[in-house]
Amino acid sequence: MKTNKIDKNSDIYKIRHSMAHIMASSVLKLYPDVKFGFGPPVEHGFYYDFDFGEHTLEEKDLKAIKKQMFKIINKDDAFILDTLSISSALDKFEKQQQIYKIEQINKLKNQGFNEVSTYTTGDFSDLCEGPHVASSKELKNVSFSLDRISGAYWLGYEKNKMLTRIYALCYQSEDELKEFTLRRAIAMKNDHKKLGKELDLFLIDDSVGKGLILWTPNGTIIRDEIEKYAKEIEFRYGYKRVSTPHIAKEELYLQSGHLPLYAESMFPPITVEEGGEVKEKFYLKPMNCPHHHKIYASNLRSYKELPLRLAEYGTCYRFEQSGELSGLLRVRGLTMNDAHIYCSEEYLEEELRAILKMYTEVYDTFGLKNYYFRLSVRGEDNIDKFVGDKDLWDKAEKALEDILNQASIEFEVGEGEAAFYGPKIDIQFTNLMGREETVSTIQVDFQAPIKFDLTYVAESGEQKRPVIIHRAPLSTHERFTSFLIEHFGGAFPVWMAPLQVMIIPVSNVFEEYCEKIKQELRSDYLRVESDVSDNSLNKKIRLNVKKKIPILLIIGENEVKNEEVTIRRYGKPEQQTVKAVKFIEDLKNEIKTRSL
Amino acid sequence: MKTNKIDKNSDIYKIRHSMAHIMASSVLKLYPDVKFGFGPPVEHGFYYDFDFGEHTLEEKDLKAIKKQMFKIINKDDAFILDTLSISSALDKFEKQQQIYKIEQINKLKNQGFNEVSTYTTGDFSDLCEGPHVASSKELKNVSFSLDRISGAYWLGYEKNKMLTRIYALCYQSEDELKEFTLRRAIAMKNDHKKLGKELDLFLIDDSVGKGLILWTPNGTIIRDEIEKYAKEIEFRYGYKRVSTPHIAKEELYLQSGHLPLYAESMFPPITVEEGGEVKEKFYLKPMNCPHHHKIYASNLRSYKELPLRLAEYGTCYRFEQSGELSGLLRVRGLTMNDAHIYCSEEYLEEELRAILKMYTEVYDTFGLKNYYFRLSVRGEDNIDKFVGDKDLWDKAEKALEDILNQASIEFEVGEGEAAFYGPKIDIQFTNLMGREETVSTIQVDFQAPIKFDLTYVAESGEQKRPVIIHRAPLSTHERFTSFLIEHFGGAFPVWMAPLQVMIIPVSNVFEEYCEKIKQELRSDYLRVESDVSDNSLNKKIRLNVKKKIPILLIIGENEVKNEEVTIRRYGKPEQQTVKAVKFIEDLKNEIKTRSL
Repeated sequence: MKTNKIDKNSDIYKIRHSMAHIMASSVLKLYPDVKFGFGPPVEHGFYYDFDFGEHTLEEKDLKAIKKQMFKIINKDDAFILDTLSISSALDKFEKQQQIYKIEQINKLKNQGFNEVSTYTTGDFSDLCEGPHVASSKELKNVSFSLDRISGAYWLGYEKNKMLTRIYALCYQSEDELKEFTLRRAIAMKNDHKKLGKELDLFLIDDSVGKGLILWTPNGTIIRDEIEKYAKEIEFRYGYKRVSTPHIAKEELYLQSGHLPLYAESMFPPITVEEGGEVKEKFYLKPMNCPHHHKIYASNLRSYKELPLRLAEYGTCYRFEQSGELSGLLRVRGLTMNDAHIYCSEEYLEEELRAILKMYTEVYDTFGLKNYYFRLSVRGEDNIDKFVGDKDLWDKAEKALEDILNQASIEFEVGEGEAAFYGPKIDIQFTNLMGREETVSTIQVDFQAPIKFDLTYVAESGEQKRPVIIHRAPLSTHERFTSFLIEHFGGAFPVWMAPLQVMIIPVSNVFEEYCEKIKQELRSDYLRVESDVSDNSLNKKIRLNVKKKIPILLIIGENEVKNEEVTIRRYGKPEQQTVKAVKFIEDLKNEIKTRSL
Repeated sequence: MKTNKIDKNSDIYKIRHSMAHIMASSVLKLYPDVKFGFGPPVEHGFYYDFDFGEHTLEEKDLKAIKKQMFKIINKDDAFILDTLSISSALDKFEKQQQIYKIEQINKLKNQGFNEVSTYTTGDFSDLCEGPHVASSKELKNVSFSLDRISGAYWLGYEKNKMLTRIYALCYQSEDELKEFTLRRAIAMKNDHKKLGKELDLFLIDDSVGKGLILWTPNGTIIRDEIEKYAKEIEFRYGYKRVSTPHIAKEELYLQSGHLPLYAESMFPPITVEEGGEVKEKFYLKPMNCPHHHKIYASNLRSYKELPLRLAEYGTCYRFEQSGELSGLLRVRGLTMNDAHIYCSEEYLEEELRAILKMYTEVYDTFGLKNYYFRLSVRGEDNIDKFVGDKDLWDKAEKALEDILNQASIEFEVGEGEAAFYGPKIDIQFTNLMGREETVSTIQVDFQAPIKFDLTYVAESGEQKRPVIIHRAPLSTHERFTSFLIEHFGGAFPVWMAPLQVMIIPVSNVFEEYCEKIKQELRSDYLRVESDVSDNSLNKKIRLNVKKKIPILLIIGENEVKNEEVTIRRYGKPEQQTVKAVKFIEDLKNEIKTRSL
């Protein structure tokens, strides 16, 4: 299974960890009064937190530190493990006046430890569990760079002293480091928060609240286009759309089990009081499921209506901790491309197959390839956080595993990653920075039909329980859009681009013809503008390319005379001149088929 | 100005009021121990509340009461006004053991009254302010019917005794009564709550909450079609769609002035506490305006961008009292077809003209004609409930009045009907029962630009304040849909019908051809099914007509042979046979142009 954590026993862990010590040792050489915080290996390298006292470390100081590090690496300094009694350890670090290490040893003492371990390389000794490489000479071929300096509170607690953190990138080979640096540069250029601002796609406003996205006109076009796509593909796959409120009474979530099991992720309630007494309690919905179940339950259902597939592009609210919020990726208001499929057990596999097919179609439409499947099950630990009968869980887990095997889909197993009400297939995407996120899921749920007493009349006349599949190929709209922005680097395909066509007259004498083409395209609801500014042709092109508009139409004398347009596509240097009629026809087709 | 109340000095008021006394007098004749509650004239007649003690009044008893009423009417009993001291009045009604009247006299006494008035006709005397007709003989030509019996708590308070209410319809002429009865029969048949259930358009579920609509698949199709229409017409009129969260922090509503001015209509807050302290407060948004203003304010705006028209089909939440909730007409969750137009003062009139034009286009699309315009201003009373500078109010009221006059639109004036932040044009619709409701509004707002410090850079380089127009031609989606359901009697035009076409094979040997046509229509996202049940042709037609499907296609041998379809339209007896190709082309065009 891919994770963002590195295995403690891997070579790269040992290397980064040892490099952190080498860096600390070098800093000590240059700043003998430095006090050490912690210095762990991390995803792309390592860091160490220092207290430089009065001195303020600057970027330019890093060069000397790096030079000193090479000196140590070029020696053959062993990493020597010692086990010390608490009192000897205290004695050792008190001599060095390492106040943070002393604090840490005392903490371990209070936790009942009798001894601690240290690792020593050359003059530098650190309170440390290891593991490390055997000798500094093993680090000779390691590629690293001292990346940046930042502030970090001791123990991450904001009332503590602010220490100085030096971040380093570190890989086993130069190629790997180069590859990462390049990838990071692209990721930073394409970062959805940065592009979101540049292309004016969305905003977050403090007086509205953190994690609550306001979609601006450009972002709303993308939202509408994606929802329209969801609507169309769901129509073709036999789904029926519903639309439900964003709140519900407490009793709905008591019935569903969200209360108390999911309460931590929910906003606090809206409490209606009358004469000092609680009259009603409402919650913002954290999921659409219970509302859909109520629609299912509102009619007597027959086997003839099944599978009933209820879909909604429904906005939910979850109370993520404010420290965890990040752009579109972690939000408090999320619009799910949700659907719940109510089917008989016999149809479960067929439905799951159809869903997998639909997912593939969705990813192809957006040209997404960097994903893999994960079967998320209960696992062995924390079994209490999952509700429902063991047999039903086993059955559901087996159904999902079978369907993946039948479809010859490779998958990994995520122990303990199931939803509280059932197992699921997660489709894991990796972003430009190599971080993995669950984007889509497919969940099998035998619990909700019991909790909501959902039934259907079978062909035999018997009342039976349907099984429910929860599915969301497009994830939450916010997360999916963050992936798309980065995936396309903000240069969206024509069908979803906020502005699809910019018409650029070479001179203002051609504006009438431009206007005619603009109106013709707009009559089909195409998003088109013409640039009638006073800028030169070159400047017009430059500025509009910067906006990542997929199509620029250049209109000069020949184009007007021949009823043509000259097409310049984003990212493609060559231009093409065609009849205006043909351009319009081709463009409409390109949009209809959602070409990439 | 039209209202649903009747003028106290009108003839019909006196007639209905007098008839209520005649009914009470008749009941007294037949049930000498009866105790009287109240008996006022109401919108279409009158009622009286009685305490029959042990006796339970039944429908069949009404005949005798009516007969007795005619007896009194045929006499020449005068309505005699007496003014009595409180003590004589108490004496009079204590003799009759009229406990409810005694309670009422004591209440008046406590309020400081020294005397009360009574009206006497024949043997019956009532505590009453009048006015009445002079004599029962004036009621000879009045047309009335004793409509129904219902329970009603004394003084409307549920801890009091339940009395028996007799409702009567009453008009000055037989024609009027007949016309009303007919209108009511149609209104009842087309009542949106009744049709909503029959056609499975929406539901309200107690565990979700009163006034919170769950749109089922059929209702969601209508919702999506109306939103799509709004999107298209707004595209044509140069609007830009946005999408904003359903909650915001308290500070947003302090800035907008909704708190405290509009607090009563808002849901209580969501209060986030940490360690016993209030950390954040969120409110469900009662209006979309503040969110839109934040989007406007997120960029430096130039005069070149104005008018900036931000539109949203945005769901808001208002805490209507549960007793006032009614189907789709009065709800707690409402989706506004909202837009805010930010323009310079110079463009205000042009924008208002464009909005009036758009409104007319919208009403024409739906074939709505039963509306009139109302200019809603502050008026003279309760001037405190309106915020902002008097001069700006005057200016805004004048702008709206001018624009109506310029467009030669007749309008009435609604004193005190303005929004708290500005005057508005309301477009008032009358439903089938003659009840009037505000459906669309246009509001001019000089206050919000100040509160939100909204500016734009004018051509001169100066920073100026825009003026804001709030507009919502389609009202709230819920209210508008309630009007549409009743307006169309559930038989929606093809473009918005949940199911557009039902294909009916005369025999199952033609199913293949039906399937082919179905798939062809579906490939264009048309909503079509085929009825492959075992029912006879006649039964199939009958059942599908009942579902008010606009188009039934009958497919028999000839149709298959000639590649034709036989079209049967809802509400039209004649059938028409045409080439399948032509039908499909015509149908697509009918949908695209949204024909009625």
